[in-house]
Amino acid sequence: MEETLKQIQRRLRNFAAVRDWDQFHSPKNLAMALIVEAAELVEHFQWLKEEQSTNLPGEKMAEVEQELADIQIYLIRLADKLDVDLMSAVNKKITLNERKYPVEKVHGSAKKYSEY
Amino acid sequence: MEETLKQIQRRLRNFAAVRDWDQFHSPKNLAMALIVEAAELVEHFQWLKEEQSTNLPGEKMAEVEQELADIQIYLIRLADKLDVDLMSAVNKKITLNERKYPVEKVHGSAKKYSEY
Amino acid sequence: MEETLKQIQRRLRNFAAVRDWDQFHSPKNLAMALIVEAAELVEHFQWLKEEQSTNLPGEKMAEVEQELADIQIYLIRLADKLDVDLMSAVNKKITLNERKYPVEKVHGSAKKYSEY
Amino acid sequence: MEETLKQIQRRLRNFAAVRDWDQFHSPKNLAMALIVEAAELVEHFQWLKEEQSTNLPGEKMAEVEQELADIQIYLIRLADKLDVDLMSAVNKKITLNERKYPVEKVHGSAKKYSEY
Repeated sequence: MEETLKQIQRRLRNFAAVRDWDQFHSPKNLAMALIVEAAELVEHFQWLKEEQSTNLPGEKMAEVEQELADIQIYLIRLADKLDVDLMSAVNKKITLNERKYPVEKVHGSAKKYSEY
Repeated sequence: MEETLKQIQRRLRNFAAVRDWDQFHSPKNLAMALIVEAAELVEHFQWLKEEQSTNLPGEKMAEVEQELADIQIYLIRLADKLDVDLMSAVNKKITLNERKYPVEKVHGSAKKYSEY
Repeated sequence: MEETLKQIQRRLRNFAAVRDWDQFHSPKNLAMALIVEAAELVEHFQWLKEEQSTNLPGEKMAEVEQELADIQIYLIRLADKLDVDLMSAVNKKITLNERKYPVEKVHGSAKKYSEY
Repeated sequence: MEETLKQIQRRLRNFAAVRDWDQFHSPKNLAMALIVEAAELVEHFQWLKEEQSTNLPGEKMAEVEQELADIQIYLIRLADKLDVDLMSAVNKKITLNERKYPVEKVHGSAKKYSEY
């Protein structure tokens, strides 16, 4: 794992430890917290046209950035609790996706894999 | 941004580009895809006791690892589209959280900040 | 509560009881199950244009109808467990919303209440 | 459809119409709004033990009741837009579930249907 991510992981471990919050951080609860943050992200976009969502005003952009951070925080925390190396899991998953969605088959179509 | 994350970001950009999928990847749509993946994670935990969620059998663990990867993939993709540096946003947010939840005030309590 | 809803509530109670599933149906777990179903609904719409979402092909429409049913099922189940009268709660909430979003103030605008 | 539900549906139609909010209420957007409300429900339970979630203090209970109402509101609104009869869809779905999860097979087990 790269150094930045390791440092953040340790920073979050320490954050929870000194607050005695590990007792709340079961994977079940962290998954709930993560989806709550994901919904706060979705809330920013729910009434916007797609085009508007690509061009957010500054203040909204700052809030969205914080939501992305919150999701990332719970994701790192959960991966740590489950002893998963996130970036290595990501690289494995992208390799799988490249096989599941061959370019020649899916070009320009958003159908789900299962529908092919 | 560290090298691993930059490489993944480029790999995902290329993955979408060669499939002509950028047309689907508005921030609005990516936020929806992200929460759908978050729910697939939650689904693994919904009927488990908290204690069970800390000790997953091997096969379930492999599925959960893939869900974590899927969430991370959409998060990197969305951050890329919005030109957000994820890890720097995370460090800023942790600093904010450290101030919002002072150790002496929140030790051992899961109340939300707003309730203090 | 109207008769149809009462009958469904009883049908769901019985469904869980004969399967010995009440042990899994804590409000915490039912809330998780509900959001998982909500995400299955969202998944149907994630890559669609808004216009496309208003005009679903027959097969997709049948799947969406089932997702709506699943959400409603967990909502009735959860309300039952918490002893909430759903339709009376809804009427109270609409009355609140009518006051929070006065017509003359919010006409044609999707800003959140808090932003006014 | 029973009278109460029909009345609520009409009340919500009117609520949106007089505010000129129908322009925002595409099924895609309503599905997003619904999952955001589902997450606000989940948030109330995320750090609670299952046992605590069955026995909420009065103030929290009042908030949870409002979240249930919000979910129900968007569900009725979405069903109306898609011309779905919610309660009839629910009864059809329960009948399906009774076949998918035969009592003798699933008694006391929370495994997903697909795992049987």
